[in-house]
Amino acid sequence: MENKGLIFVISGPAGSGKGTVVKRLREIMPSIGLSVSATTREPRPGEIDGVSYHFVTREKFESLVENGEVLEHTEYCGNMYGTLVSEARRILDAGNDMILEIEVDGALQVKRIMPDNAVAVMLIAPSREEQERRLRDRGTETEESIAGRVARAEEEIALADRYDYVVTNETGKTDECAEKLRAIISAEHSRYERMKPFVDEYNQR
Amino acid sequence: MENKGLIFVISGPAGSGKGTVVKRLREIMPSIGLSVSATTREPRPGEIDGVSYHFVTREKFESLVENGEVLEHTEYCGNMYGTLVSEARRILDAGNDMILEIEVDGALQVKRIMPDNAVAVMLIAPSREEQERRLRDRGTETEESIAGRVARAEEEIALADRYDYVVTNETGKTDECAEKLRAIISAEHSRYERMKPFVDEYNQR
Repeated sequence: MENKGLIFVISGPAGSGKGTVVKRLREIMPSIGLSVSATTREPRPGEIDGVSYHFVTREKFESLVENGEVLEHTEYCGNMYGTLVSEARRILDAGNDMILEIEVDGALQVKRIMPDNAVAVMLIAPSREEQERRLRDRGTETEESIAGRVARAEEEIALADRYDYVVTNETGKTDECAEKLRAIISAEHSRYERMKPFVDEYNQR
Repeated sequence: MENKGLIFVISGPAGSGKGTVVKRLREIMPSIGLSVSATTREPRPGEIDGVSYHFVTREKFESLVENGEVLEHTEYCGNMYGTLVSEARRILDAGNDMILEIEVDGALQVKRIMPDNAVAVMLIAPSREEQERRLRDRGTETEESIAGRVARAEEEIALADRYDYVVTNETGKTDECAEKLRAIISAEHSRYERMKPFVDEYNQR
């Protein structure tokens, strides 16, 4: 009665603390599948194709994107990075879940490309004041860049209705937040739609 | 950002082991609200109205049912027993969740009367063979009554599509099953629809 794996897409605006929470979640759920990203960047010494990354040319990457074979992607320092649909299917078909910690744009891409297998969770700070305080506490941002991030966060949070779940990440409660995410992962596997094949088989005998 | 409590309706056919699992769930979640049932039965010595039960006349009970003020009810040994909508609202409005372990008919009644607040979970044995084995192991049932219960279970499981979740209760894994139910309770509070008031407030300031 194993059902197939699911992709848990976790995103949230700046100051939501998603990096810390997802790191903790991976610690408490070591069975979560790790996906190997594709990139157009040159391999560094010691990096192995298919292990460190799937190294592809920009031309190849772009054709993969065009053919809907890239779940989500982004550009960073002139190189493309993304998650291949084939990579996701390999993990899911083996019955493992995967977690993608990505930006809001990417999260919506994933929901569009694999609607039946993707569960989107938006992580947010407990309040706007707290979000701003976190950005200030980094000490690396100007007031102008903070204002820009807050405005962008507002736009991103307005897209929460495209998400399945919204989880607040209270300050100093990383463990509690990671537990909430673990509960979502567990619960999603028990949803009727996912259990339907089991129910049908149970009753057909 | 407290959201309101939810009613978790847990039901399942004979042999699903729901009694044992719900008992365990109440142990690991002592904060779950206890609802005081209404009944037409006479109070026994020491029983207090509003604490042991809400004692009402049959006439009153029937008019409550007619007016949609009873969430679910059943008749047992000539007396009516049920859960009042007012009792459920009192618990939910205080921000507490409640659990109702009831028959499939009752579960569908609850979903109909409080669709926004009720989450229905069907518990089933891991297989039909295992379900039959459990019924036989009770040692109190004739082959005829077992066949009757199995047939009834089939009808009940065919209603699984009206449920939000289906959870299998593997033999000897009561704790694991109770943890799955706890995860569902946690996750449901994070669903976007339930978090919408928080998201709206966050963005309106």
